[in-house]
Amino acid sequence: MVNETPQSCSGSSSSRSDGGSSSGSESSKDNSRCSTPVLDADRHERLREKMRRRQEAGDRWFSLEFFPPRTANAAVNLISRFDRMGAGGPLFIDVTWHPAGDPGSDKETSSMIIANTAVNYCGLETILHMTCCHQTKDDITGHLQKAKRLGLKNIMALRGDPAGEEWEEEVDGFNHAVDLVKHIRSEFDDYFDICVAGYPKGHPEAESYEADLRHLKEKVFAGADFIITQLFFRPETFLKFMKDCQAIGITCPIIPGIFPIQGYHSLRQLVKLSKLEVPQEIKDVIEPIKDNDAAIRNYGVELAVSMCRELLDSGMVHGLHFYTLNREVATTEVLKRLGLWKEDPRRPLPWAVSAHPKRRVEDVRPIFWASRPKSYIYRTQEWDDFPNGRWGNSSSPAFGELKDYYLFYLKSKSPREELLKMWGEELTGEESVFEVFTCYITGEPNKNGYRVTCMPWNDDPLATETNLLKEQLEKVNRRGILTINSQPNINGKPSTDPIVGWGPSGGYVFQKAYLEFFTSSEIVTALLKVLKKYELRVNYHIVNVKGQNITNAPDLQPNAVTWGIFPGREIIQPTVVDPVSFLYWKDEAFALWIEQWAKLYEEESPSRMIIQYIHDNYYLVNLVDNDFPLENCLWQVVDDTFELLN
Amino acid sequence: MVNETPQSCSGSSSSRSDGGSSSGSESSKDNSRCSTPVLDADRHERLREKMRRRQEAGDRWFSLEFFPPRTANAAVNLISRFDRMGAGGPLFIDVTWHPAGDPGSDKETSSMIIANTAVNYCGLETILHMTCCHQTKDDITGHLQKAKRLGLKNIMALRGDPAGEEWEEEVDGFNHAVDLVKHIRSEFDDYFDICVAGYPKGHPEAESYEADLRHLKEKVFAGADFIITQLFFRPETFLKFMKDCQAIGITCPIIPGIFPIQGYHSLRQLVKLSKLEVPQEIKDVIEPIKDNDAAIRNYGVELAVSMCRELLDSGMVHGLHFYTLNREVATTEVLKRLGLWKEDPRRPLPWAVSAHPKRRVEDVRPIFWASRPKSYIYRTQEWDDFPNGRWGNSSSPAFGELKDYYLFYLKSKSPREELLKMWGEELTGEESVFEVFTCYITGEPNKNGYRVTCMPWNDDPLATETNLLKEQLEKVNRRGILTINSQPNINGKPSTDPIVGWGPSGGYVFQKAYLEFFTSSEIVTALLKVLKKYELRVNYHIVNVKGQNITNAPDLQPNAVTWGIFPGREIIQPTVVDPVSFLYWKDEAFALWIEQWAKLYEEESPSRMIIQYIHDNYYLVNLVDNDFPLENCLWQVVDDTFELLN
Repeated sequence: MVNETPQSCSGSSSSRSDGGSSSGSESSKDNSRCSTPVLDADRHERLREKMRRRQEAGDRWFSLEFFPPRTANAAVNLISRFDRMGAGGPLFIDVTWHPAGDPGSDKETSSMIIANTAVNYCGLETILHMTCCHQTKDDITGHLQKAKRLGLKNIMALRGDPAGEEWEEEVDGFNHAVDLVKHIRSEFDDYFDICVAGYPKGHPEAESYEADLRHLKEKVFAGADFIITQLFFRPETFLKFMKDCQAIGITCPIIPGIFPIQGYHSLRQLVKLSKLEVPQEIKDVIEPIKDNDAAIRNYGVELAVSMCRELLDSGMVHGLHFYTLNREVATTEVLKRLGLWKEDPRRPLPWAVSAHPKRRVEDVRPIFWASRPKSYIYRTQEWDDFPNGRWGNSSSPAFGELKDYYLFYLKSKSPREELLKMWGEELTGEESVFEVFTCYITGEPNKNGYRVTCMPWNDDPLATETNLLKEQLEKVNRRGILTINSQPNINGKPSTDPIVGWGPSGGYVFQKAYLEFFTSSEIVTALLKVLKKYELRVNYHIVNVKGQNITNAPDLQPNAVTWGIFPGREIIQPTVVDPVSFLYWKDEAFALWIEQWAKLYEEESPSRMIIQYIHDNYYLVNLVDNDFPLENCLWQVVDDTFELLN
Repeated sequence: MVNETPQSCSGSSSSRSDGGSSSGSESSKDNSRCSTPVLDADRHERLREKMRRRQEAGDRWFSLEFFPPRTANAAVNLISRFDRMGAGGPLFIDVTWHPAGDPGSDKETSSMIIANTAVNYCGLETILHMTCCHQTKDDITGHLQKAKRLGLKNIMALRGDPAGEEWEEEVDGFNHAVDLVKHIRSEFDDYFDICVAGYPKGHPEAESYEADLRHLKEKVFAGADFIITQLFFRPETFLKFMKDCQAIGITCPIIPGIFPIQGYHSLRQLVKLSKLEVPQEIKDVIEPIKDNDAAIRNYGVELAVSMCRELLDSGMVHGLHFYTLNREVATTEVLKRLGLWKEDPRRPLPWAVSAHPKRRVEDVRPIFWASRPKSYIYRTQEWDDFPNGRWGNSSSPAFGELKDYYLFYLKSKSPREELLKMWGEELTGEESVFEVFTCYITGEPNKNGYRVTCMPWNDDPLATETNLLKEQLEKVNRRGILTINSQPNINGKPSTDPIVGWGPSGGYVFQKAYLEFFTSSEIVTALLKVLKKYELRVNYHIVNVKGQNITNAPDLQPNAVTWGIFPGREIIQPTVVDPVSFLYWKDEAFALWIEQWAKLYEEESPSRMIIQYIHDNYYLVNLVDNDFPLENCLWQVVDDTFELLN
């Protein structure tokens, strides 16, 4: 492409005298020039643009619908499901609006908060459903404002079900989805992408199929960006509907809603709610096997796969929307068989990005929260700016307090009984704590035969990368260097490396070796003597729960410990060891001993007192080996320390 | 050191229960946390702090005094002298105030502008002298405000010489230096460091030596930070003076003014002006050799060295101030013999930093101005912020226009006749231009036997680093790839590397290979075909004088081409290839053909028309090889291009 200089110039952009080929790529019109190296433009585009780009590129995609859960425990499970199903690469997910469940509230099970979690904590493009009947303008505006504040950018505008049996129009009220679409556009301009519902068989309450199509057209012309349809059972139903829509001038994307049949009762319930009729040929298959869940699910998967194939083969359909009923197996199976499930091992950054618009430029985080990204996002949610390039200059030092341990996205996925089995029903001394740490590292079962698959500082099994350090980690944990975070040094591996790679291809990634652990004051005293020998090479921060802090960090400078060099980019340094935020992390890291571990035991019990003792007396230590091209010296530091103690 | 957490905590900063050694370094109180890795704290300390730190560390230092020149040509020479003598490591330089030379004006020879050049363009800590007699308060405040605006931070407060023969006090005027000291402190608070003059023999107009000491004490107590003395001929003169000062309570640093005798006439003139008497033992040596300049200078050097040694050996003197009379040889010789001349091959950054306070955080620049740093500083002097870490986010796109080609710090040091000898009295075609470029690269004499030691884009001989590429550069210049900037790729050399190293020790520096050149549209057409093969590896920008621009740079992202990894720091990326600033550089680079080269020749002359043709028709090209760990592929790109043309 031929670009013009920003200054005045006489040249024309379309003609070049020498006839050189215009092999350059197009320049972005985005003047913010954010330097974050995204794997694709996904992080910066709005949903309708993503959809358009996929369609233009001929890429096929899928999306997933969930409903808000009833209990906090179910919410914890749903969030894990978001993470797992998010790995398959949905273009978006959507969360339904439960008028009965206080949907706009701050409850952990509300539609609003579940959608908030999906966007901010799971990094998923999310559509929040919203219904308008029986609500005041102010209520709705309040919900929309809140959604905007939370970083939600897409609304599915629905009428909702009437309270009574019969539908009665309210004067000056929101009587139809189109009223909500108009309201969103008039109050929020173009901020939200708006989705509306289409009914391939016509809305059950509509006078006629044709009348319903006209209603749909009204919704689109009022400002909707795309349509998701109600479920249907035959591909030809959707294809006819789509042609009819196009015939009356509806040109926006229309996404078929796919419902893989997962069980006899759920099908019956859904059909009743949506006032649909199950075709006879399906009934004929299902009725005889209605008590065999596995058989029905298999049939449902077959049916869905064959219908989806027909839709995709028509050439009219680019994306498929799945009604998951909050279940994983059937939908994932269908997607895998269609070849739409795409687990991309590449990561845009070493940590999971958030989808909140204000975090778009965020590309640096302290390494401390590497295993607790949701906690980091929670504690920085009030920030207005996020560090882009440099930590110290743009980050706010005001980390949110971490009082709310009950907050569901910070809670362990495992129930108390399981944690006790992993971490010990009864502790007999500091050594039994060392044993728990060691089992977590090795993956071997503990004395009672249980594998330790999580720790208070890390709710997931050991990262693949950490496996590179497994042998040494095992050795030091046995002796009371209780590691909670570490990374090996990396001297320029390709950015496509399956274990340590991140960012776009063609780049090189680097790391400084990092080790973070709790340990006794006795070991700290020896360690400090040893560290004198490494003064120029190793940076350290050593702090106890009271905040007494020993460091050789120059000034209050952050130390970049992960960075990447990419073609045509500035350097990205996504993780730093930052002296200031370390003291906030310290509070959290020490508190987890008590909140997650000590509190499993009775007050005054010996087990609880052991954890309390460690909390009160141990130090939290982090070490960085600055000499990344050489062999990691941190193990030598630890060996020297043990030797000094002997 | 034990640091407290910024949050409330119960720990005490002075006691630690485990008795671990406090081996950490002190934390800075500077909350700005600038990440620029300075070789020492010089870039961030004010002069009096630097002096104190040097004294505490037992380091000895020197400073250099210059006076403003009479002509623009002399100013160009003086600035080169600043650069050369600055390499020896003066703690500061000072520029005298010439009341007769319109000292506060914007003239290129004014005291103000010479001091401005020293600070901003030569990166030297600078003291501007200022006299106050016969001036209004408003005039003086105006001068001080201007000095502050230009980035000057130190003032030498002087009375100045009376207009007539006899001194008459003005009512309400500035009659003494102390009035100026008080005025600066009252109007500018603690902004400036203030220096005052001391007279080891007493001021010639003072009632007595003792009375003069009391005046000096008044100046110090009014707010002066240190004292520089008038010249003297015997060390005991200074040492007695210093003891007398201390006896009456003057405790600030007192810096002896050293005058190496450089010639018979200059000595006589200076002595007359300062109303000093030359001791008989010196007269006895000088009178017999008064017509032998070399002999007198040798004697002057001997005398100065022996006096300086005695001063330093006394243990009372840490710094020496030299009256250079704008000459280089004698002072440099004295400093070298004293071991004070310290050429530090280490560079804090790959480019010369400016000493303006607002540029302290600046740590990224476009590579284009690598050989024209003064032009870059000039064109960005109106910026309020300077990029720190990232280019795109913090840099202002408003580059100053480069109309003022006559500005003395942008002019070539060489006169027209010399340039004609180097670049050709008469050009016969584009090939004779290729020949000039080739001779500049090889260092071989041109056809007429002259060496080409500068080019319009580079007023200095080839950089040491560029020598690494010499052979290939010669080859391509001969064929019309007219190179003006280049760097080799570097994959992690120690930061102390004598050729490519920069920044503090213990780090590693990296570079992507870079090549920038002018070339014909014919070559560009072939080049673009070749570049298709390198699409993922090589980034390019190709632009002609009209601004027609071909690039494959992603969006408007800058590409970091030099970076360094240091212990305990964020990553520093001091040079980038930035697509936006390239279009500003393009204007300058093309203009230099005309302003510096074409205008050497008569209008309508064939030589001038040849340069004009190149200016109008050639393209400016830059290429970056992103694969810094592999062998530089840019030579292959150029070879392929030539092959395609054959």
